[in-house]
Amino acid sequence: MRRLAVAVRQPPGPRTDTTGWKVKDMRTAIIGCGTVGSSWALVFSRAGHDVAIYDKSALAAEDTLRYVKANQPEAAGRVSITLDLEKALASADYVQESAPERLPIKRELYATMDGLIGEKTIIGSSTSGIPSSSFTEKLACRDRCLVVHPINPPHLIPLVELVPAPWTSPDTLRHVKDLMESLGQQPITLSREINGFVVNRLQSALLGEAFRLVEDGICLPGDIDKAVADGLGLRWSFMGPFETIDLNAANGISEYCANLGPMYFGLAKEQADPREWGPELVAGIEKKMRAALPASDLAKRRDWRDRFLEAIVKAKNSIRRDVGA
Amino acid sequence: MRRLAVAVRQPPGPRTDTTGWKVKDMRTAIIGCGTVGSSWALVFSRAGHDVAIYDKSALAAEDTLRYVKANQPEAAGRVSITLDLEKALASADYVQESAPERLPIKRELYATMDGLIGEKTIIGSSTSGIPSSSFTEKLACRDRCLVVHPINPPHLIPLVELVPAPWTSPDTLRHVKDLMESLGQQPITLSREINGFVVNRLQSALLGEAFRLVEDGICLPGDIDKAVADGLGLRWSFMGPFETIDLNAANGISEYCANLGPMYFGLAKEQADPREWGPELVAGIEKKMRAALPASDLAKRRDWRDRFLEAIVKAKNSIRRDVGA
Repeated sequence: MRRLAVAVRQPPGPRTDTTGWKVKDMRTAIIGCGTVGSSWALVFSRAGHDVAIYDKSALAAEDTLRYVKANQPEAAGRVSITLDLEKALASADYVQESAPERLPIKRELYATMDGLIGEKTIIGSSTSGIPSSSFTEKLACRDRCLVVHPINPPHLIPLVELVPAPWTSPDTLRHVKDLMESLGQQPITLSREINGFVVNRLQSALLGEAFRLVEDGICLPGDIDKAVADGLGLRWSFMGPFETIDLNAANGISEYCANLGPMYFGLAKEQADPREWGPELVAGIEKKMRAALPASDLAKRRDWRDRFLEAIVKAKNSIRRDVGA
Repeated sequence: MRRLAVAVRQPPGPRTDTTGWKVKDMRTAIIGCGTVGSSWALVFSRAGHDVAIYDKSALAAEDTLRYVKANQPEAAGRVSITLDLEKALASADYVQESAPERLPIKRELYATMDGLIGEKTIIGSSTSGIPSSSFTEKLACRDRCLVVHPINPPHLIPLVELVPAPWTSPDTLRHVKDLMESLGQQPITLSREINGFVVNRLQSALLGEAFRLVEDGICLPGDIDKAVADGLGLRWSFMGPFETIDLNAANGISEYCANLGPMYFGLAKEQADPREWGPELVAGIEKKMRAALPASDLAKRRDWRDRFLEAIVKAKNSIRRDVGA
């Protein structure tokens, strides 16, 4: 792998003092009211925090408020709409930026926010792929900025990736980790910025092989989906890949690797041909997906997905109480 | 990827006639009574089929019978132990071979079975990694042999991979697919033999990236496990990777690939360095896994895994009834 040439160095000048930062009864701000921002508004408000929601579009902000009301009516009283960015940020302890995924937008927004936030305010970006170093370098508040990347929707899926820029302060990381845990999320902390972070890199590896198997005519896209949904994914819904193999040899992961490492290395060599997902391949898969689910049913299927996800997360939490975590 | 040079050709001479092969009230035989064989005995017997279980070790066969009794007492009456391979095979319509994963053992066993089975009997091998062409080529019954690879344990995890040898007849494939579906399993059919089949290739891709991220110091093994168990795996427990991305763009998978294909291709290039899981890396991970779970607790944790898996599969089936499949 080409290692990223990101220098890990301390920021110039004194670091902001975030002593006294607390994760109780906070004033939070959601900047950007799309799908992700709406779910974040629910996460913060249901945990008892005040939430100021801001979007350039009043309609989007109203949609977010409606979303919170529909999902958790008793939390909606803590959510207030503001169309004034300055007002949204004025007293915020924590800001979850969920603006569109375009670098110029983030750059402009952060430059503006830099002049408006308090001196202890922390800003987490929901970006799924833009390292925060690319839009925070010049800011006075840069040591209080980092990526706080959820899997959509965060009110159902607890995993959150915390990705520091080279200048993100250790205090900032620690505070946000505490905050996320207090919200019931499951934060993981990356040591440094890396393309795709962790979640999309794992997904990339699986998708790459999925497209490869279909392109090579080994099986159909629906078979791959079955292999995961009726097979591998059942274990992965409560055990990660390391724990899975750790339990798959009498004496744990070392024994597993001694037995099967060479086999996996052989497979890895066969899988080391990065391929573009070409137009023909994608069109073929699209055709099969649309035969199984017409485009007109996509929205309905998304509702199904959300209901299924909500039910499976609820079931899992209940099983954890019965069987242990 | 180096494509496998497996010629797909018809077997010499006339194909066995499997007309009239049926998937109801069958006589089945389980050859090899380890963990996988025991779970298969449960799968066949609970579906109403007679099951003859055979193992060189009487103790192993008795363990299997006890296992069925403990899990599904009413099915145990259909399971009989025999220590005589000829008797076990004499009237079997279908044989699930679950012998140890060593080629010489499989070769000898199949050569013996070839002379003992009926002319319509089909043999599925539970092998997770040995292509059946390597132990069935010389057999009279070779067009009725194939890999029927479960994810352990098959009585909880429905996915089964059907992998034909070049000489496996289409009828055989079709019959076994029907049989597996009638048992409540979810069979997928590979077009040809390939190293690792589909399931282990997908797992290999994910594991390869997991080890890479830990080796590069991006995060800890426990973080990877969280990223999957509290993140990606929640969706993958009921939707495969293709359906997941199909629903993640307004107009489906083509749009998703147009937007994110280049990003994934970039990641794929970074992930195209196959790495051996070296002793230092494995020892480091082992140390962290043992700090979280002492070796003395591995067996107890395996019980936890099985209870969790059983509960999550039950919950999922119930959700499917409520929300739709």
